[in-house]
Amino acid sequence: MQKDPPSVAGEGNRLHADVTRRDGAPSSLAPRRASLAPAFAGWQARVRDSFARQGAMALIGAALADVAPGYCAIALVPRPEVSQQHGYVHAGILATLVDSAGGYAGFTLFPEDSSVLTVEYKLNLLAPAQGERIVAEGFVVKPGRTLAITRGEVHAEQGGQRTLVAIMQQTLMVMRGKTDR
Amino acid sequence: MQKDPPSVAGEGNRLHADVTRRDGAPSSLAPRRASLAPAFAGWQARVRDSFARQGAMALIGAALADVAPGYCAIALVPRPEVSQQHGYVHAGILATLVDSAGGYAGFTLFPEDSSVLTVEYKLNLLAPAQGERIVAEGFVVKPGRTLAITRGEVHAEQGGQRTLVAIMQQTLMVMRGKTDR
Amino acid sequence: MQKDPPSVAGEGNRLHADVTRRDGAPSSLAPRRASLAPAFAGWQARVRDSFARQGAMALIGAALADVAPGYCAIALVPRPEVSQQHGYVHAGILATLVDSAGGYAGFTLFPEDSSVLTVEYKLNLLAPAQGERIVAEGFVVKPGRTLAITRGEVHAEQGGQRTLVAIMQQTLMVMRGKTDR
Amino acid sequence: MQKDPPSVAGEGNRLHADVTRRDGAPSSLAPRRASLAPAFAGWQARVRDSFARQGAMALIGAALADVAPGYCAIALVPRPEVSQQHGYVHAGILATLVDSAGGYAGFTLFPEDSSVLTVEYKLNLLAPAQGERIVAEGFVVKPGRTLAITRGEVHAEQGGQRTLVAIMQQTLMVMRGKTDR
Repeated sequence: MQKDPPSVAGEGNRLHADVTRRDGAPSSLAPRRASLAPAFAGWQARVRDSFARQGAMALIGAALADVAPGYCAIALVPRPEVSQQHGYVHAGILATLVDSAGGYAGFTLFPEDSSVLTVEYKLNLLAPAQGERIVAEGFVVKPGRTLAITRGEVHAEQGGQRTLVAIMQQTLMVMRGKTDR
Repeated sequence: MQKDPPSVAGEGNRLHADVTRRDGAPSSLAPRRASLAPAFAGWQARVRDSFARQGAMALIGAALADVAPGYCAIALVPRPEVSQQHGYVHAGILATLVDSAGGYAGFTLFPEDSSVLTVEYKLNLLAPAQGERIVAEGFVVKPGRTLAITRGEVHAEQGGQRTLVAIMQQTLMVMRGKTDR
Repeated sequence: MQKDPPSVAGEGNRLHADVTRRDGAPSSLAPRRASLAPAFAGWQARVRDSFARQGAMALIGAALADVAPGYCAIALVPRPEVSQQHGYVHAGILATLVDSAGGYAGFTLFPEDSSVLTVEYKLNLLAPAQGERIVAEGFVVKPGRTLAITRGEVHAEQGGQRTLVAIMQQTLMVMRGKTDR
Repeated sequence: MQKDPPSVAGEGNRLHADVTRRDGAPSSLAPRRASLAPAFAGWQARVRDSFARQGAMALIGAALADVAPGYCAIALVPRPEVSQQHGYVHAGILATLVDSAGGYAGFTLFPEDSSVLTVEYKLNLLAPAQGERIVAEGFVVKPGRTLAITRGEVHAEQGGQRTLVAIMQQTLMVMRGKTDR
């Protein structure tokens, strides 16, 4: 049997580690709630405002599906305008979704007087992206004063099934003294 | 509250999805056990033999800690010979451990007449690697006929606590018609 | 003085290695022209046709600027619709451009009965993308039977100056027996 | 003919851009010497001291081959102790070499009261690493106040020929107020 990865989502998983570990084993993963607590009370509105100001999100038809401390989900309904040559959703569009999901996941934890910048990311494409809806999720793995590390996943939904179509690993920078506007 | 990532370990998580989902929600993640079933009965001995033939593993003092279908763990006890200039375990040593853990995680699923090759990987270093033991784990996210995608994690263990010190995302190639020897 | 990197563009540079090495030193880099020779006479029309069928390229306003064996350039004139929240070109749009430039650079060398698939890429963002024109270029570093490795660069042009705004490293897969249509 | 990549080595190339452009075309790439000027007069000794304190470098048998502003080369003579299961140099050893070469390339440009930290890197393995000598080189693409971006290459040398065996893209952090000791 494959082992249960104890902290695949990093800090995120640790929130749950003391509550339910799937294999029932005692966990040495101390929950570190404080580290995923937003540092700015207006974190949610700030993300929604920032998202709304991104022309590229409107252009491709992306919608902010969910936002929580250390987490963000962005969804898109496939259409020909976002396709590549075989009719699937273009890898660059998937990248746009998941880069933004990771960036906003990190931004939920940043201090008031700051903005978020993607330093770099790496994306593996696993399966053709098609279906009723594409959902990109970002998870903070490691928050930090200057940098934050996230992971991302993109799923394609069809008939109640989800297929993992891409995974990402990303480095963000906390831009202090620079507001998002 | 941060969302529970439904498939952070990809296929691996899916093995457990029907048994226990941590948030208790109904899961549309159909378990796909078949996809993580080894294609070669001698998968375990093959990994152990291959590991034993790697001079670099002996040199750095790495030990094969665990191997299961789609999973591998490699451990190392820190010592000055594997350090960088501040005395922590060198990032290159961590890379050697986790690249190999990912590679062998994939190799457990490969057909008989094949070998494994790392095409590429990306590694984020999250915290200084120090402690009683360093454990690198590889998880298969997406097995395939030609390529396999894995994720990796490196933890430092100290006094019963684990600290996530590095995360990896990796692409492997199935080298058919080429044995591991 | 910084050293002259002898093969920064990989195979591509080797085309020129016997002609002019910038530091005048004798070069051991044997030119390997054959390896960057297109395997399909219709390589150029195939790239142009494929590009034209990508809905996402039309949506974001990208144009195929140049294509040569092992090379492709895609350009875009910035406008509000492709911006992020600060008004610069969105990182996801840059990714779309340079992922495609790398993919088509590789595709120029693929056999007739094949298509191109991005396995993965990694993108570093170096500077805000703004100016009169954004140009993404892809260069084949290592062609292969099953995989091809490319590098990419994105420059922002303004007043006759070019600023390097992003660099990429990418893995492509040769999809044999699958045409691009 | 493949196009000449105008700035593949980033800032490094720009040192030479005004002197010789291989295609003879007028260049808009203004040389930016200042940006690759070391900020600390003792840059060279600092790199050599730091290298000498890395236990892992001695263990694997690596030697500092060259160091210049924005550049570093580290060499290794292959032996069974650094091999993987097929007898080639282990990918993790190549990673150790090129991660360090990139890190020290960056460190040549850092201020006096600072240290260097690898945030992340991505490595593509292109060919089996074997031969008389392995040389890993790091080149600074983009220096910065907080982060520096580098590229790396690993060549295998045999009989006067060089084969490109790996390429890397890396993010470094300037650790201010923390000396390398």
